[in-house]
Amino acid sequence: MSDDLDIPESHPRYHSLLTRHRIEDGVEKGITSQQGLIAQGRGEAFDYLLGEETIPSADQAARAAAAALLGADQSVLSVNGNVAALVPGETVELAEVVDADIEVNLFNRTEERIERIADHLEEHGATDVKGLTADARIPGIDHERAKVDADGIYSADVVVVPLEDGDRAEALGEMDKTEIVIDLNPLSRSPQVAAIPIIDNVMRAVPNITRHASELAEASDEELTGIVESFDSDAALREAEGKIREPERGEH
Amino acid sequence: MSDDLDIPESHPRYHSLLTRHRIEDGVEKGITSQQGLIAQGRGEAFDYLLGEETIPSADQAARAAAAALLGADQSVLSVNGNVAALVPGETVELAEVVDADIEVNLFNRTEERIERIADHLEEHGATDVKGLTADARIPGIDHERAKVDADGIYSADVVVVPLEDGDRAEALGEMDKTEIVIDLNPLSRSPQVAAIPIIDNVMRAVPNITRHASELAEASDEELTGIVESFDSDAALREAEGKIREPERGEH
Repeated sequence: MSDDLDIPESHPRYHSLLTRHRIEDGVEKGITSQQGLIAQGRGEAFDYLLGEETIPSADQAARAAAAALLGADQSVLSVNGNVAALVPGETVELAEVVDADIEVNLFNRTEERIERIADHLEEHGATDVKGLTADARIPGIDHERAKVDADGIYSADVVVVPLEDGDRAEALGEMDKTEIVIDLNPLSRSPQVAAIPIIDNVMRAVPNITRHASELAEASDEELTGIVESFDSDAALREAEGKIREPERGEH
Repeated sequence: MSDDLDIPESHPRYHSLLTRHRIEDGVEKGITSQQGLIAQGRGEAFDYLLGEETIPSADQAARAAAAALLGADQSVLSVNGNVAALVPGETVELAEVVDADIEVNLFNRTEERIERIADHLEEHGATDVKGLTADARIPGIDHERAKVDADGIYSADVVVVPLEDGDRAEALGEMDKTEIVIDLNPLSRSPQVAAIPIIDNVMRAVPNITRHASELAEASDEELTGIVESFDSDAALREAEGKIREPERGEH
């Protein structure tokens, strides 16, 4: 994790201060939208109920995601405003480790915001960021929301869509792809339609996928396929929901 | 509820569209902060888990709040950026029905934002909005956060603090006041330290207190005291937590 905050990682509120710092930076740079700030708050509430930690099923999901990415013919990490603000360096690192492309993909799409996000990712080491060509459409959703790059998300066999809208997650899931969703709400549609739902904070999940991918770098195609196939998405969603429903967590 | 949105109240997404419209208006007018938008998202997540409805214990709490306000010697409704954006007209109406003052009280206090919020409330019919004098301090919290009006929150015997910070709610609770908190998270400190915690969306809770106050307008002091004293805040918090923990609500 890049150390862009001037306090030690041992500080008890390090992660929440780092999150706030990155979100504020995102607003300042015009990459985090109003709706992105509200979505961030929704995520905070679910993360609080999850105990602000990577639960075992989310770790297994991250390992399955790493295996799917390493076994892919062509993989793409989709990046929206919040992902760009929260995990720019971590996304670039994951893309390098699993040899994935990065594509900016916004729900409220403007060329200006795509360019700002691409610039922000490039400041964190990304090269050849996709998303501006937008020469293909995801079938089944309305025109503006459907735009993707033909040689990016459209043709990829494995896509990571963190914090994705439910309609788009569903439409992508209906294409012939392995869809990996990162979302903190196990009850929302995006993780429910994903082949691999990771119910975790993107700030924990993205570096965790990278860590698993580094460990699996020498694994055979059979081993990778086995890890993906043995992952049980329904069980993972149930475990996450159970954790959220667990009583007596004490006060905030 | 004032009809500031050009769609019928029967529309299935009326309330969520109205909320979004008011929040966007709040941002445009400089009264909703970045932190306010994130807090709005946290509230949305808890409201979703609550079923986006006023649960019976929240309705009882609203009735107890109405009784406490009607029985008060001096009552104040505290308003921050999100309250001003979400329920400006509803707050003015409640203040009229229970004869309470309105005081702007911000966690991140700037004179400019207080004035904008006071103007916004005045556009919705408020007169004599307090909060700019700031000539008294709530004991036990740091100077900037402690500022209140001597003839407002400081001297009131009943205060309504919707969406209040935990430290301030606790410090206010330690003064000799009946504190009414409106908050969607029953696990957070603010409702836990309140005499009357209302676990509900402010957009439902504020008009609901007004409705109960109208019904109780002719009640005797004994009746009002009886309603306040029979309210069980621990039971209300438990019921709200139970509702949040209730499994299988279906998808978002």
